[in-house]
Amino acid sequence: MAEVRKRVAVLGAGPVGRATAAYLAHYDHDAGIWSPSGRGTAPLMARAGGLGKGVIEYRGALEGRVEVDVLRSPDALAAYEVIVVAFPGHAYDRVLPLVLPRIESRHIVIVSGALSLVPLWLYEQAGNGTARPLVASWGTTLATARRSERADVEIGSVRARFDVAAIPAAAADAALACCQGLFGDRFDLAPSILATAISSVNPVAHAAEALPNLTRMERGEDWYLFECMTPAAARLAEAIDAERLEIAQALGLKVRSLATHYQLSYHVPLATVAEMAAAIHARDRAPLGPRTAEHRYVLEDMPYGLVFYEMLARTAGIAVPVMSAAITLACAAYGRDFRRENRLIDLLRLEGLGPAGLLARCAG
Amino acid sequence: MAEVRKRVAVLGAGPVGRATAAYLAHYDHDAGIWSPSGRGTAPLMARAGGLGKGVIEYRGALEGRVEVDVLRSPDALAAYEVIVVAFPGHAYDRVLPLVLPRIESRHIVIVSGALSLVPLWLYEQAGNGTARPLVASWGTTLATARRSERADVEIGSVRARFDVAAIPAAAADAALACCQGLFGDRFDLAPSILATAISSVNPVAHAAEALPNLTRMERGEDWYLFECMTPAAARLAEAIDAERLEIAQALGLKVRSLATHYQLSYHVPLATVAEMAAAIHARDRAPLGPRTAEHRYVLEDMPYGLVFYEMLARTAGIAVPVMSAAITLACAAYGRDFRRENRLIDLLRLEGLGPAGLLARCAG
Repeated sequence: MAEVRKRVAVLGAGPVGRATAAYLAHYDHDAGIWSPSGRGTAPLMARAGGLGKGVIEYRGALEGRVEVDVLRSPDALAAYEVIVVAFPGHAYDRVLPLVLPRIESRHIVIVSGALSLVPLWLYEQAGNGTARPLVASWGTTLATARRSERADVEIGSVRARFDVAAIPAAAADAALACCQGLFGDRFDLAPSILATAISSVNPVAHAAEALPNLTRMERGEDWYLFECMTPAAARLAEAIDAERLEIAQALGLKVRSLATHYQLSYHVPLATVAEMAAAIHARDRAPLGPRTAEHRYVLEDMPYGLVFYEMLARTAGIAVPVMSAAITLACAAYGRDFRRENRLIDLLRLEGLGPAGLLARCAG
Repeated sequence: MAEVRKRVAVLGAGPVGRATAAYLAHYDHDAGIWSPSGRGTAPLMARAGGLGKGVIEYRGALEGRVEVDVLRSPDALAAYEVIVVAFPGHAYDRVLPLVLPRIESRHIVIVSGALSLVPLWLYEQAGNGTARPLVASWGTTLATARRSERADVEIGSVRARFDVAAIPAAAADAALACCQGLFGDRFDLAPSILATAISSVNPVAHAAEALPNLTRMERGEDWYLFECMTPAAARLAEAIDAERLEIAQALGLKVRSLATHYQLSYHVPLATVAEMAAAIHARDRAPLGPRTAEHRYVLEDMPYGLVFYEMLARTAGIAVPVMSAAITLACAAYGRDFRRENRLIDLLRLEGLGPAGLLARCAG
């Protein structure tokens, strides 16, 4: 039972959005869910009795069946206190313009797995630039989640601890209290939304998972994600991760390593990435890796993850050769220029800000 | 029956060395074969009657069983007119110092699939620098060949046409005549051994085959090489190949594209690399890709192929971002610095020569 019951709208009805809404309703909050296209909520509504209601069945680390409200449009946000943004990065510039005009100063907005400093855009453009909500930035998502045949969402694991930061930074304690009240004691307060932006390890892990397994994805094969995080793939992950940590250090920030994230997300002892991946696979024999090359592991995490990190490296004046190589190789293999696909870098005019200017702007 | 029977020593008793020696003996030349370690010739000798003899059984594009002489040491080269170097690039700096003192000015040396301008080293260091043999440089190997369970070597295909060049360049006609006499009408004379050095497509194709299939190799899986040259892998190959063609152009040389090589090596119609790979796979359902990450596709072709091309790009003053990305990613995945493993670049003091200086030196 929630100590303080809140009305929370989750934007995005993919696996992470469903898991987040399910978690909230499971712990007795009034959860709403919105699918920008309507496709994500249609099956939930089909199973519910009442108009505007949906049912989420969830299995795995958390199991149950809850009823949630289904938002018909962003106008419905007026009825909510907290908004959780839970759709992938490559939908930001398409979906957020529909939402931004409806965000008010009284709202607390939580960005789940915030990539590319999108909390900064939300903060600066809320209410078309007239509102100043409190925006909380999460370094990753609440849970690992995926589509499932036996339920609406399969929750792989609920992360034990991850970073949260806020803009304006002065209101960080209020953001932390809100997150803890809704999701429990699993948050570490980071000094800046920039730290949480760099703390996402998904782009690192996903690049090292996708590139050496790219033909498996493209051919639609069944392959186990952590079984195929072989020693070579794991060394690649560690090399890219070392560059991510260097960027953070150059900006005066401290973030967790990929290995520590694995420890906290998958609850395995700290070791090399190869050893931890082997331990996760030996225990879970799951999850399967992407079965299409057109997958967010590349389409989201290249432009909104590694390309953003590469831009931060330029800001910090350091080279990130392995990260840059991974981007360049993905561009060649996909025949796309992922470096031009991150619209937020342009929209936020992040390029050219020095480290101090960037940090100041991220403080709100 | 050979028009002019010659005594030809093949150095290297791996698949390509065996295929080359078998081809020569098949067409009635006196072929010898030398395995630096002795491991490659031991099974051939076990099957032969006489001391110092070996038998090669070959299947595939050429089939038969021939007797060859087995060289006990490079001293035996004194009895041969032509020497064919047919071992992989990453053995050059270990094996060639044993051979160089035994090469005389009267020798014609043919380097099969010459990587990293090794013909230049052979020419300059033969007889410890006192001899001046005629060295012919092949842009690729005579045949595609691999280890086989049903014979000593499986010959996938004998290439229809490929480039040859000579050092000294003034003696190119003699080199061409020798190659044609031994191996038939399948050679196009290139203007410089530098052109043949750039004409090798193996480093390009193998990078695009290895990197997106790396975990298959590492896990020892069975996978079809051309089936897994998927559209994404093929786009990667084409992007790297375009950079190779740019290097050649910047040095004033013209070399064939990877697609044209596929046409001439695998006898399929010219199309995109993805389409040609699909056509080869549909017809052959072979060969299998490497079943270990410790394979010459990476260990030879990164340092002695792409790293050499990258050095040429520096010489030509152009950037080769996709090639460089492939090298950097392979270094990270293997935990090795392939850029420091090409000893010939140092031994030949190639770094820092301008395009004109390089071309002049390659003319002999």
